[in-house]
Formats: sequence, C-alpha cells, structure tokens
Amino acid sequence: MNDFPAWVSKPPAGPEPAVRQAAERRQQELTKPPGSLGHLEAIAVRLAALQGTQAPRVDPVRVVVFAADHGVTSEGISAFPAEVTLAMVQNFAAGGAAINALARAAGAELEVVDAGVIQDPGRLGGVIPQRVGPGTANFVEGPAMSTDQCVAALDVGRAAVDRARSAGTRLFVAGEMGIGNTTPATALASALLRLDPVELAGPGTGLDEAGVSHKVKVIRRALALHGDAGADPLETLRCLGGFEIAAMAGAYIAAAHDGIPAVVDGFIATAAALVAVRANPAVADWLFLGHVSAEPGHRRLVAALDDTPLLDLGLRLGEGSGAATAVPLLRSAAAIHREMATFAEAGLT
Amino acid sequence: MNDFPAWVSKPPAGPEPAVRQAAERRQQELTKPPGSLGHLEAIAVRLAALQGTQAPRVDPVRVVVFAADHGVTSEGISAFPAEVTLAMVQNFAAGGAAINALARAAGAELEVVDAGVIQDPGRLGGVIPQRVGPGTANFVEGPAMSTDQCVAALDVGRAAVDRARSAGTRLFVAGEMGIGNTTPATALASALLRLDPVELAGPGTGLDEAGVSHKVKVIRRALALHGDAGADPLETLRCLGGFEIAAMAGAYIAAAHDGIPAVVDGFIATAAALVAVRANPAVADWLFLGHVSAEPGHRRLVAALDDTPLLDLGLRLGEGSGAATAVPLLRSAAAIHREMATFAEAGLT
Repeated sequence: MNDFPAWVSKPPAGPEPAVRQAAERRQQELTKPPGSLGHLEAIAVRLAALQGTQAPRVDPVRVVVFAADHGVTSEGISAFPAEVTLAMVQNFAAGGAAINALARAAGAELEVVDAGVIQDPGRLGGVIPQRVGPGTANFVEGPAMSTDQCVAALDVGRAAVDRARSAGTRLFVAGEMGIGNTTPATALASALLRLDPVELAGPGTGLDEAGVSHKVKVIRRALALHGDAGADPLETLRCLGGFEIAAMAGAYIAAAHDGIPAVVDGFIATAAALVAVRANPAVADWLFLGHVSAEPGHRRLVAALDDTPLLDLGLRLGEGSGAATAVPLLRSAAAIHREMATFAEAGLT
Repeated sequence: MNDFPAWVSKPPAGPEPAVRQAAERRQQELTKPPGSLGHLEAIAVRLAALQGTQAPRVDPVRVVVFAADHGVTSEGISAFPAEVTLAMVQNFAAGGAAINALARAAGAELEVVDAGVIQDPGRLGGVIPQRVGPGTANFVEGPAMSTDQCVAALDVGRAAVDRARSAGTRLFVAGEMGIGNTTPATALASALLRLDPVELAGPGTGLDEAGVSHKVKVIRRALALHGDAGADPLETLRCLGGFEIAAMAGAYIAAAHDGIPAVVDGFIATAAALVAVRANPAVADWLFLGHVSAEPGHRRLVAALDDTPLLDLGLRLGEGSGAATAVPLLRSAAAIHREMATFAEAGLT
C-alpha cells in the first residue's frame, strides 16, 4: 500500500446492467436501421447506463482547465519558456484562448484552476487559486512532488468536481496548461506502459528532432533515478507527474464517484487518465476518449485505455480543446437516444 | 451541350484569395502553437475565405431533407419496402426521426421537402410539397426521369436554398430519405467514376450478401441500358438518379451561387455532390465533407471529391444525419478563428 488517501482507490459504482440492456434494446427499436448510427449508438448506450436513465443528457457541461508549472523545464525540454504558462492563464481569464472559444461553441461552462503556476497570477477573474506550490521540482533531481503535494494536487481535481456537481454538471471535461508538460506525461506513460520514452516522446508544442531526442534523454534519466516507480501508479505520479496532471487524475476519479462521465482530451490528459485507471480500474467505465491527438505517443495511450476516440482531427493543443470539440458528439448521441421515436411510436412495423 | 438550364452550370464565385491569405496569417498569430488545432484550422481558413471575413460564422444553420421514391424498388433492391419513405416523412413531421434529434442537438433549423414520394403525404406540418412526380420510373426499363422532371427536381433544391438564404442561413445541410436510394446513388457513382458497381455497392439499410449481389446486377442492367450516359453528368443524373438526389445536386449548386457553404452527408449525398461538381466544378470549393460513412463505396466517392471528411463514426443512416453531427465542428472552427486573441492582443511575444 501507499500513503495516498482511500478515496483515490475506492471503486466507483459501475454502469447499470439492466439500464444498459434496456438501452441496447431501445437502440434496436428506434426509427432507423439497427446499427445505422454507428459509434453514436454505442455512446448513447454507455451514457444511458452510466446515468441510469433512457433519457441521458450531457448538459450542463463543465470544462475545467488546470494550470501548473514543471521544474523539468529547466532542462530545456520545451519550445516555449515556462513564463508562458502564466501568460496563458491570463489569456484564459481574458477569454482569448482556444479553450474559451471552444467551450463557448460547445455550450460548456469554463473554469480555470491555478494548481501551481511558478509565478502567482494573483487575483484574476475566473481563475480559482488552488496552488499546490510554485511548480513541481525537477524530476531528474528528485521526485516531482512530495507525498503531501501529490495528495493536495489530487484533491484540487476532486474539489473541481465537487464544484461541478454542485452546479449540476452532467459531463465533465478536464483540460490542462503547463509549459513542458508533455515531458512528465511521457515519463508517466513510459513508466506505466513499461516503454522506452523514445516510443512515446513527440514534439509537444513544437520541438524539432534534436529537441525530441534531448527530451527522450531527460526522461530516461528520470526513469533511471526513480527506479521501479511504475509499479505503483500513484507513486509514479508523485515522482514523474505534475500538479495539473495529478489534479486531472483526481478529477477523473472523483467524477466517477459522483456519477459524472468525463471526456478525456489529448496526450497529457490521457496520461492522467491512465494514472487514474491504474490506481482505480473501474474509473475507466466513466471515461470517453474525445480525440486522438497528433502527438505521436497518444495512440499508444489510447490503445492502453482500450477505447475508440471520437475525433481524429490532428489536434495537439491541450487545454481540453479536443475534448471540448467532441462534446457535441456526446450531446448528439444523448439526443438520439432520448428524443427519437420507436417504430411502435411512429406506427412503423 | 444538354437541355438543362444555364444556372446549373454557371460557376459560383470562389473563395477570396486575399481573405484566405489573411486567414492563414491570422491562424499563425492566434494564441496557440501554429498548426496545433489541426484540421479545425484548415476549416476555419476555408470558412473565412468563403464568407469573405475574418469573423466566420455558421449560424443560422439549415438542414433540408429531400424525400422521394424510386421506381427501381420494384426490382427488390432494398431491405425495406417503398412505403417506408412516406412513413418516415410522417416521422419527420412528427419530430421523431434521427435527423430531428440531431438537427436540434446541432442547433440547426430543419425543413422537410417532399420531392416526389409515391403516395402524396397530403398536408403535413413542416413538410413542403414540391412533388416532381409519384417516384421516378424504374431505370432498368428507361430513364429514371424525363428532362422536365430532372430540371424540376434540380429546381426543388434551388428553391430550398432560396428559402434558406431568405432566412439568413450561413451553413446548409442537404439530407435525403428515399427507400432504395443507395441503388441510384451507386448507379450514378459507377457511371461518373467509370467503375463496375461491384466496387461501390453495399448493404444500404441492411441487405445481406445475396441482396448486394442482386443490387449489383440490377445496376449493371441499368448501366448497359443507358450506355455512355456517364459522359454528361446531368444526363447521367436524369437516367440513373432520383428526385431527391437531383434536388440535393441542385441545392449544392444554388448554395454555392448564394455564397452559402454546405456540409455533405453520406453515400447518397456525396453521389449528388459528385454530380454537382462534375456539372459545375467550382461548386467543390463550397462543400465540406461531414463524415465518411460505413457504406463501403463511400470512401471511393470521398476520394473522388478530394477532401478529408470531418467524422468517421460508422454512420450509414442518411437523412443528413452525419452532416448534422459534423455541424458543431464547423461551428468550433469558426469560433476559434473569430474569437481567439492573437499573441499581440494577449501581450505574448
């Protein structure tokens, strides 16, 4: 066992088998050739079973972007300097980032959480201060987080889900902002999937080939330093993760506990989802993969989660952007299940 | 030349090159790593260039479903009897079909047009009577339509676009309902792409292997009867198409004339789009492919239109369902272009 609180590994309730069977029957009875709505039918059935109703709904949808910085940026693993994390938090607050536009377009509420940006942004409208610390430690020199910090970061995610549940949220999206965070995400994925980082590392926001090669070497050093951290997913998270990644993992687990399905975004979010699922396997039932990212390692992560992403649009931004873009597909799936007439209702035989 | 009216082949205006270049620059200046929003960036640039503005919008969106019957159903080429077309029109009017739910979920207005169902549905709320005839003739015995009928059916599509333009529509979706209409769509595609129908024919709403094989033979008979109809796309449409297919082709052409981009649905809609583009090549600029269908021949049609579909969800229903499901992606693309801050605006350098 480890030093993490019990809530993290407590299994959530699963989808309801009887509701699932009724949902599968209903999909056969709706006025369309059976199966003709493809993947939307499977999503509708999952949503119905998770929400325990033949009238599934996704609204209100909430997107929460967790922002934090990473000590490992001092190794030069990102195309952008760490200061950009703060600048982007300010951009979120001002409403000018991609996730602002995409959340609005998807009809979703947006919340931004400072989980530990290096420089305290101070009071910014719409940014919730939940600072675990001024960025993580450099994980090539020691663990990224102390146990207390990792627990606090998981709790940042849980608190965001608490707020969402109070607001009636039916679908949760976790996004992230943290310059350099494809490096901890790649390190986590390498440890958990027992792959060499060269199999997972990619350009992130824009590294060239030499940059990716350097990033691989940095991650190899970290993996060597932390030994078999991969044996325990939460200890791996503590050694190799980040505050925003831990917050996302905590949010996925808490959302499942609260009966709220979540849409997983790209590479970093999926690494967080993998941590959550390794720490608490039944959480997987509650996760929908929003898209497959252009970041090359994402396909390996997607395969490890054994689900079919909804979109494949070459996105690689993060912030929750791909998951927010996928939200209308879940809304459409819920709508067909909830609103379509059956053959009997339509008088068709 | 042929006997079709001049409007059908009159080239629409193209996207504006200067606006396109400015849109490409803007995508480089928005607060994200360049290219990180993948296919959404390309869509945003296309929408901006087509609408002639750096503030592209898709709303209001209009979906128009054209319904009609097909004489070739008497050859037993469909898993459902022709009477289902009328029943589904009644289902559209009652609000219980997939396209009703999907149009609502996508925030789109829905209009249903009777372009020539066998049995006159009479007065049904929300169904616009534009009956070209009580279904087409059986094209294994003669042309599916007279020239007058084919011109009238093209005009049904143009009239729908006229109504949409008057309502301020910024994005148009054409859908269809017509039992048996994968058969004329396959015949059209075979003639225009000069492929044997075995390369394009699929199960439609649910034929088994023997059914598909029979369908191939029926289409081969039609192709033999109509000789090199494929040389002229409109004459091909007349001999092998359907009223709703001609209406969709007419709608794509008219929408392009009116400066309204359209989202193309699945197999039948894409066959109609291919007719439109062969008759009037510049119309292609105005078409977005909403999805790639589970109907096996759709990939060949998509390849012929040389564009990347937005979704790949295994849909094969028609009605405009896949295009309506893709509408929010175009809305998201427009939103990022219109609403995101540039690096300069955000004070990021």
